Amino acid sequence: MKKLTDISGVYASGTYCGLKSDSSKLDLAYLYVPNATASAGVFTKNKFKAACITHTELALKNDTIKAVIINSGCANAATGPEGIENCKITAEKAASLLGIKNSQVATASTGIIGVQLDMKKILPGLDRILENPERKEIDLAANAILTLDTKIKLAFAEKGKLQVGGFAKGAGMISPNMATMLGFMVTNVALTPTTLKRLLQKACDDSFNMISVDTDTSTNDMVLIISTGEIEATDVKEEEIFELIKQCSISLAKQIVADGEGAEKLIEANVKGANSELEAKIVAKNLINSPLVKTAIHGADPNWGRLMMAIGKEPSVRFNPDEIDVYLAGQLVFTKGRPGKFERSDLKKLLKAAEVKIDVNLNCKASAQESYSATAWGCDLTKKYIDINTDYN
Amino acid sequence: MKKLTDISGVYASGTYCGLKSDSSKLDLAYLYVPNATASAGVFTKNKFKAACITHTELALKNDTIKAVIINSGCANAATGPEGIENCKITAEKAASLLGIKNSQVATASTGIIGVQLDMKKILPGLDRILENPERKEIDLAANAILTLDTKIKLAFAEKGKLQVGGFAKGAGMISPNMATMLGFMVTNVALTPTTLKRLLQKACDDSFNMISVDTDTSTNDMVLIISTGEIEATDVKEEEIFELIKQCSISLAKQIVADGEGAEKLIEANVKGANSELEAKIVAKNLINSPLVKTAIHGADPNWGRLMMAIGKEPSVRFNPDEIDVYLAGQLVFTKGRPGKFERSDLKKLLKAAEVKIDVNLNCKASAQESYSATAWGCDLTKKYIDINTDYN
Repeated sequence: MKKLTDISGVYASGTYCGLKSDSSKLDLAYLYVPNATASAGVFTKNKFKAACITHTELALKNDTIKAVIINSGCANAATGPEGIENCKITAEKAASLLGIKNSQVATASTGIIGVQLDMKKILPGLDRILENPERKEIDLAANAILTLDTKIKLAFAEKGKLQVGGFAKGAGMISPNMATMLGFMVTNVALTPTTLKRLLQKACDDSFNMISVDTDTSTNDMVLIISTGEIEATDVKEEEIFELIKQCSISLAKQIVADGEGAEKLIEANVKGANSELEAKIVAKNLINSPLVKTAIHGADPNWGRLMMAIGKEPSVRFNPDEIDVYLAGQLVFTKGRPGKFERSDLKKLLKAAEVKIDVNLNCKASAQESYSATAWGCDLTKKYIDINTDYN
Repeated sequence: MKKLTDISGVYASGTYCGLKSDSSKLDLAYLYVPNATASAGVFTKNKFKAACITHTELALKNDTIKAVIINSGCANAATGPEGIENCKITAEKAASLLGIKNSQVATASTGIIGVQLDMKKILPGLDRILENPERKEIDLAANAILTLDTKIKLAFAEKGKLQVGGFAKGAGMISPNMATMLGFMVTNVALTPTTLKRLLQKACDDSFNMISVDTDTSTNDMVLIISTGEIEATDVKEEEIFELIKQCSISLAKQIVADGEGAEKLIEANVKGANSELEAKIVAKNLINSPLVKTAIHGADPNWGRLMMAIGKEPSVRFNPDEIDVYLAGQLVFTKGRPGKFERSDLKKLLKAAEVKIDVNLNCKASAQESYSATAWGCDLTKKYIDINTDYN
């Protein structure tokens, strides 16, 4: 499979600079697109924003992002004015090494909160890693941004000459503090910043915003996209490039939940026949967020009653409980207000798969309109999740 | 401590009728208030309502509830018209044994869903238990409504002659299907049904609606209150009787979360200085619902960063992150936009207590108005929760 750095003019690498105590790991990465023509970002909605969020939002407002400096091992959140100052120093250093403007450098962080970035480690690390920045070492970059993730997360989508590539991290939580999801993508299509932002937001809404490991929202969540400007946008249908951005986003998002803390299974909830997209999304998310659904699937328990509870949880969603169809792992478990006919033992076998699908048809007949659908992805809830989040201290 | 049946004219008992497979347990209870003058109820908002919810909502609309028949071991949910019919048969049987009208009998159920009530067990059970109904065996009644609860839950509040007593159940989930919370209270004050409903709703909003074991909402949740009519309402200040109903509700609600599935600790989140009651409630609930906060407290981990994440989770809540104060187990962990000064080892010790408080002052200065506060209660998230909800099959 192709990777992000297979796109012309896109460079990335990673190194160890000392932020993590384990020196066999990597903790500092960069993404470098020297000829970037446009950039856009989507950020955490948490009221407590990490310093890197504040810094990068401002950079995006003032300029085009050509480089992103990403560290793991320290979230630089709840760090006050000193935290912001450290982002600036990082950007200045990177800019001077790369010969670009300070305002063209974004920063992203993930790790412990309430602790200042150790600039004595970051700055020499930047010296080393940016000495020869035109490297195509995306695996090292993808590795250096991980925390409790067990795998690197890469995605690539193309159609003809159009390309979108990306990498991401996120496992549900950062030892020892909080969840963070980071995603970085590059496309070779010369979209305007406004179009890039609109397509990124739309793609995030159907991918990163439809996954959940533990319902918690980090202070550091960030998804950035940068354009190399190689392919003229005038030659490209917007739907085509959107489709590639979305594919890439969904691939990264699914890799994040599949590698969720303690997760052993990917859960996909498909909801159709809703009266609105929002209602379809609410039901899909309630299914993948329910601890009772998550534990049942973990135990391969043919416990379909929990699905009904989750589907009905939000009273504002319009549907008739007597008219919906619910499938668990392909078996019709509820239809026309009553339990479906299926063998519990068969269902139990099907639930042992590594990926379990829940399909719901709300069967709303929106008058003379099409009905709406949504998909959400989650993971099972295991004892290992409790271990990871309780016992590390 | 006084108990519900210490109120004059209030009777209750419990027995085993065979709905649970373990005959050392109880599974059928009644509450009987022959001279009831008013009654009110609050019910699940889940779109999938159990048959007993439909039955009891109708009974409350048409008449005054004088008796409640409660079974555990079967939720009578997702059971279609036959489920409703079985509630009617139960009510008819109880009414004829008690010499009251069918429409004066409420039913409540908790247990497995998608399974019909076994009337061959219920009806002989009613014959036996209602033969001499003027029994004051509240401990048996409180026992017979339990599922995965490990303790009976009783509460009593009085001021002068005014009395409110109650019993409840709820542990977060009913083996093998879904969570149910049941609560039953009686007061000796002759309030009108309208006032009773209003005060009950208000008390529930500050108690049962402010607890969460696992964020899931049962199809069977129900809280009922009945008045014996002994004390004329004209002699009573409404605030006084409301205070007693609220005390009783909060006591039962806290007992439910403290006995939550797998729970070892009670978590109390107090939020003050908010711009509205709703905003105070959202922050308090986000704190007790966060799996990351729950696991940190379980592990006595001085992980205050997770509190910040939970406090900031809902972007619509108005406050300035640089102006809030956050206390964990009495220690100031965050103030004026920065970490507080405290010893992690001290905090770790304090977090080992069976009850952990989180106190947040949002410090909003609502102009010339008082600011708002709220309290929510939850429990820690443990491996036993996973065991209970995964491995029973």
